[in-house]
Amino acid sequence: MTTDEEETFHQTYNEFRSDTFTVPTRSMIESSYLNATYGDSVYGEDESTLALESRMCEITGKPAALFCASGTMSNQIGLRVNLMQPPYSILCDHRAHVFLHEAAGLATLSQAMVHPVVPRNGRYLTLEDVLSNVTFDDGDIHAAPTKVISLENTLHGIVMPVEEIARISQFCREHDIKLHLDGARLWNASVATGVSIKEYCSYFDTVSLCLSKSLGAPMGSILVASTTQMIRKANHFKKQSGGGIRQSGLMASMALYAVEHNLAKIAKSHAFARQIGEFCQRNGILLESPVDTNFVFVDCKANKMDPNLLIELATRKYNVKLMGGRIACHFQLHPSSIERVEKCLLECYQESLVNPHQPDNKNNKKMYNFDAIKAKGNLIESTD
Amino acid sequence: MTTDEEETFHQTYNEFRSDTFTVPTRSMIESSYLNATYGDSVYGEDESTLALESRMCEITGKPAALFCASGTMSNQIGLRVNLMQPPYSILCDHRAHVFLHEAAGLATLSQAMVHPVVPRNGRYLTLEDVLSNVTFDDGDIHAAPTKVISLENTLHGIVMPVEEIARISQFCREHDIKLHLDGARLWNASVATGVSIKEYCSYFDTVSLCLSKSLGAPMGSILVASTTQMIRKANHFKKQSGGGIRQSGLMASMALYAVEHNLAKIAKSHAFARQIGEFCQRNGILLESPVDTNFVFVDCKANKMDPNLLIELATRKYNVKLMGGRIACHFQLHPSSIERVEKCLLECYQESLVNPHQPDNKNNKKMYNFDAIKAKGNLIESTD
Amino acid sequence: MTTDEEETFHQTYNEFRSDTFTVPTRSMIESSYLNATYGDSVYGEDESTLALESRMCEITGKPAALFCASGTMSNQIGLRVNLMQPPYSILCDHRAHVFLHEAAGLATLSQAMVHPVVPRNGRYLTLEDVLSNVTFDDGDIHAAPTKVISLENTLHGIVMPVEEIARISQFCREHDIKLHLDGARLWNASVATGVSIKEYCSYFDTVSLCLSKSLGAPMGSILVASTTQMIRKANHFKKQSGGGIRQSGLMASMALYAVEHNLAKIAKSHAFARQIGEFCQRNGILLESPVDTNFVFVDCKANKMDPNLLIELATRKYNVKLMGGRIACHFQLHPSSIERVEKCLLECYQESLVNPHQPDNKNNKKMYNFDAIKAKGNLIESTD
Amino acid sequence: MTTDEEETFHQTYNEFRSDTFTVPTRSMIESSYLNATYGDSVYGEDESTLALESRMCEITGKPAALFCASGTMSNQIGLRVNLMQPPYSILCDHRAHVFLHEAAGLATLSQAMVHPVVPRNGRYLTLEDVLSNVTFDDGDIHAAPTKVISLENTLHGIVMPVEEIARISQFCREHDIKLHLDGARLWNASVATGVSIKEYCSYFDTVSLCLSKSLGAPMGSILVASTTQMIRKANHFKKQSGGGIRQSGLMASMALYAVEHNLAKIAKSHAFARQIGEFCQRNGILLESPVDTNFVFVDCKANKMDPNLLIELATRKYNVKLMGGRIACHFQLHPSSIERVEKCLLECYQESLVNPHQPDNKNNKKMYNFDAIKAKGNLIESTD
Repeated sequence: MTTDEEETFHQTYNEFRSDTFTVPTRSMIESSYLNATYGDSVYGEDESTLALESRMCEITGKPAALFCASGTMSNQIGLRVNLMQPPYSILCDHRAHVFLHEAAGLATLSQAMVHPVVPRNGRYLTLEDVLSNVTFDDGDIHAAPTKVISLENTLHGIVMPVEEIARISQFCREHDIKLHLDGARLWNASVATGVSIKEYCSYFDTVSLCLSKSLGAPMGSILVASTTQMIRKANHFKKQSGGGIRQSGLMASMALYAVEHNLAKIAKSHAFARQIGEFCQRNGILLESPVDTNFVFVDCKANKMDPNLLIELATRKYNVKLMGGRIACHFQLHPSSIERVEKCLLECYQESLVNPHQPDNKNNKKMYNFDAIKAKGNLIESTD
Repeated sequence: MTTDEEETFHQTYNEFRSDTFTVPTRSMIESSYLNATYGDSVYGEDESTLALESRMCEITGKPAALFCASGTMSNQIGLRVNLMQPPYSILCDHRAHVFLHEAAGLATLSQAMVHPVVPRNGRYLTLEDVLSNVTFDDGDIHAAPTKVISLENTLHGIVMPVEEIARISQFCREHDIKLHLDGARLWNASVATGVSIKEYCSYFDTVSLCLSKSLGAPMGSILVASTTQMIRKANHFKKQSGGGIRQSGLMASMALYAVEHNLAKIAKSHAFARQIGEFCQRNGILLESPVDTNFVFVDCKANKMDPNLLIELATRKYNVKLMGGRIACHFQLHPSSIERVEKCLLECYQESLVNPHQPDNKNNKKMYNFDAIKAKGNLIESTD
Repeated sequence: MTTDEEETFHQTYNEFRSDTFTVPTRSMIESSYLNATYGDSVYGEDESTLALESRMCEITGKPAALFCASGTMSNQIGLRVNLMQPPYSILCDHRAHVFLHEAAGLATLSQAMVHPVVPRNGRYLTLEDVLSNVTFDDGDIHAAPTKVISLENTLHGIVMPVEEIARISQFCREHDIKLHLDGARLWNASVATGVSIKEYCSYFDTVSLCLSKSLGAPMGSILVASTTQMIRKANHFKKQSGGGIRQSGLMASMALYAVEHNLAKIAKSHAFARQIGEFCQRNGILLESPVDTNFVFVDCKANKMDPNLLIELATRKYNVKLMGGRIACHFQLHPSSIERVEKCLLECYQESLVNPHQPDNKNNKKMYNFDAIKAKGNLIESTD
Repeated sequence: MTTDEEETFHQTYNEFRSDTFTVPTRSMIESSYLNATYGDSVYGEDESTLALESRMCEITGKPAALFCASGTMSNQIGLRVNLMQPPYSILCDHRAHVFLHEAAGLATLSQAMVHPVVPRNGRYLTLEDVLSNVTFDDGDIHAAPTKVISLENTLHGIVMPVEEIARISQFCREHDIKLHLDGARLWNASVATGVSIKEYCSYFDTVSLCLSKSLGAPMGSILVASTTQMIRKANHFKKQSGGGIRQSGLMASMALYAVEHNLAKIAKSHAFARQIGEFCQRNGILLESPVDTNFVFVDCKANKMDPNLLIELATRKYNVKLMGGRIACHFQLHPSSIERVEKCLLECYQESLVNPHQPDNKNNKKMYNFDAIKAKGNLIESTD
């Protein structure tokens, strides 16, 4: 292929909105076409799905695994399995996906109150944060005792140190509190630190790992747990949530391919992000936090940059797709796209020096630009 | 292909346990391989998914459609969309999938009490059944008024007459009660009666149609509703339930192929079932109900046949897969399998004449043989 | 007092709508006025409440008891305590209060599917009914296994034989299914049969007993359970439901008085009902079921009597309060009211012979006449 | 009465743990004994209850009111009435009773995610806090849009300025967000500021006001709403939660007496608290916040005072009841108790100067001392 061909082969060569946009590679599709099985997975009879689950047991060091339709599903049922009889609450970071981005699912599926915590170090939760916010099960009938702590690694691209995880894990075990990991991007943490997936997982009762972020599988997530009985129960919750997929083999087969072949490519995602991060630093563009993995969080507010201008420049002038200051990198980006996103950031930043942006003070916590999304819509409307 | 090759091409040539076992055909896989798109469906950007949804709008005459991971998901979120503020109840047939086979999901997702009704005619619900059991919203604070009636067509293979549907629909509209259809097998009803899918759907606020039963798509179900706003809301519930699939294009593309190419093959499924039904009649084997579509329900209890013997004979001697008296037909069966299942039924029946089976009176309502399923299990357990 | 004075002393001398209308007697009020304590019951510091709970432990033979605001509350939290991790279902009679008259609370508080069963003997559930409808926890991920069976005694005034309770209890213990009793009117069953409350309770994990029905306490219900830990948990659910009452002493003190002084008067309630039942029999007025305790269920449908005419005659001509064919007796009725209700029934019945009532086939299952209730309303509306 | 008699007449003359400990006065009890009615309140037929609800409509300027068993119940069902179809979230102060002290009820009854906010001014929420944390209903399927904002006034004894309430109310109306007030202690805010209850209530869709805190009624809370239809719905939720009380007249009658006669006495509660607050200031004992109403929050952490020593001194030496640094005042305290609590605080503070307390960093957010509570327990355990 020529460079131009390469650049456009993946539909995602210029896609910085999320690492969920990664697509199956040609070799992944071809391999699945040849090898996928078509057993009924609800009956536990699909070999490709069983093979993926088996491989994930090896990687995570857990005795049982369950292929799920999405990371939201594996988080929701993973947390659910750890909970028995309410009233109870779940403690997590205030930026956690399970708190902000799973449509209040924990209230519905788990009847759980969520207790979000702002980490004092501004980056990740520590045992001290936990100690100040945990609700012990001391018989107080007004309270909803903390029965699960849910960590997320990486969170906003930030790696949570394994030593801190170990401290919190020990605390949980001493107090009969369960520990769940939203490891949608645990692959990235592992690649960045060299700590094995297995070691990370050893500290948790349940772990959810995404297959369609960074790795490029078309869909799916894996839940692993400390006992086979927990995964049996999770499978019951999965069926209840409508996650029972019949011939899941094709999807599982692609996911297994992604795990075996694309994990190594994550280093490339991180290099892209680091490159953008260093570019920002050189040019005085402030970041919300250092670049640990594949995300760059440009601090639009501190830079007085207008996120909407950024999006507009990206689309109109630089042929890159952005959603604002959160820039997601992945291995299917083309190097030239990195350069274009840098230029785009610089132009927006220089404009801010001349013409500082005044945010309207509404709702700074959004991480998506939903106007853009809504313009497209995700509904079919009949023409008649 | 030779006959032998044909017989074994589909993994499902001898599979009578459920029509969910149908698998993608080679042409379906090839077509998808060439044509599927890989946009992010959570962002509403996947063309194959949008094309499937658009086509389902045409077929059903509804303005909006949503691709879901399973029939359970499209039922659960379809019913949920019709419900606003509890307390409320859902009225349905006592054999309904939403009552018995969706793991109590309606209690969790919808906070709904389900009011199951035994149809007086033994086959399908009538308006009179509804009138005797509906709870009007008359201000009684003890009660949970009926806010949705959920019908199922076909149910146990039985077609519900469109005239009865029309009567119940009119009643619902007069009393501000919503009407949902679990149309997992509405394809079969339509093929059996000649009533169009569009006409059936016109009577309902929401309809769920399965793509992986009978039609052979690997996974998925479609929810349609009377307004675009309802489908927007359904999409929110779908995301909450973990049903947001990223690159759903490959699955949607196969499902669209199934809709376009396999609907015509359902007549074959019905012919197979009719053949078995007539065989039973000729041989004095009693059925639970006439064969309307693709199911034969052999009345093991009335025939004093032992379901476990039936399963054992099927497996050991006749190379067909059965789960008991419920025999599911589909277009991927081989004609020789039909003959083998007939012989198997006859042998079991003849044994019952000599040695009538005494059921242990425990739990006659099961329709699956879970011992067989559990023997296989659907969990990976690590070997160490 | 003269007879006339006696007749009107209780506001309920002519009240047949429900035995919930019984009111505190003068001596009950006076005793509480002198003796009630005013500790904060949420902190477990009220002596009168503790005394009531302690006495109920003695009566029921259970180690712990909890004073609740209503029978609905003690049923809901009693069932909740028996349930751990869904999906699950609760099996009960199709006429059960917990199924029909608690506003779908089990779906909300317990996330439970309810599986209502029609008893084959037309009177009460038997072990055989249970066996045909129970869902064993056999690993089927489609199902919601039966985790609790909820019995009701009396139900529609019918006594459930203690032998049948014992059979079901044994089955439950063998299959790790919990057994709850809605004993709102267990007092009546005990008085009618001579079986002690303690013996009845011995078969159950949790029992709810009402204090404001028949016994005449102004409010409240008692939950007892097999372990202190279960009552601790129930207290947590009670607080969550808003049932934490601060100075509950006055109410508890009246309830304790009712238990000590009014239990003996229940025989009188039964005699009243028997008298009406025999009157009906002598006059050819068909009943739905024999009169076991304090209820007479006149079978309006079979008699072709118009329930609305019955209510109208009662109100307009006979100075008794009725809600239809369900006639509730209690010790605060005046003997002359019994005679008047008999005359009222007879007149309505004779009218039906001349002019048989044609029900409009709508909603035969209601047991309240809510038009009458709504006429009064239970809301204050400001006049401006 | 002599001073000694007066001091001990109320069981609560030395009770600083909570204002919920206030008890019915002798005149309240006598008045109810003479005047209370005994109609069935579930049927809306109790005159005393209707009279209380009617009076509360006048006071609050709302068209409908509902007597509830507790403030938790009126909060829970009040919030529930404002919510229609999830997913959604409720925004509130991070110290709110509905978030921390209602046993996660909002997750169970309302399926709501709660979004707690730390006010930037350290005292009360402002519109700016709301704007930074509200989730608009913009179609983002990941999110749970804010459908209700729940304010609390007073909160930790702090009055929320009516101007700020008005700003937030206007924002809510512009964005179709409902506004609920946990006005358990709105009486105190009104007395402290002179702003009428009616004016406060005019800004809200639903308001909950407690009758058993400060006012001295034995139990109960009132929910008012902007429409009669909302209260009808609230009544349905109340019944579902088990809050349907039969003969509620005695309790309602006492509550009405409390409203009419004890509101004026709240000024005395505030004077007591101010006296203690000024004493602390004079002696250098730091408070968490200024004394607005009837609470003094001694900042044990900043003062390095040991809360357990405080409790111990109070009990052992000063004959006052404390739960730690939160000191609740009410009109039934005796002036001499105020002096004793001051001495107790001073001794503990002086000890802290010599021997500063090192908190173990565990769980600073508790406001109850549950060890003390548990020592008493709120369960009856049988002696055999």
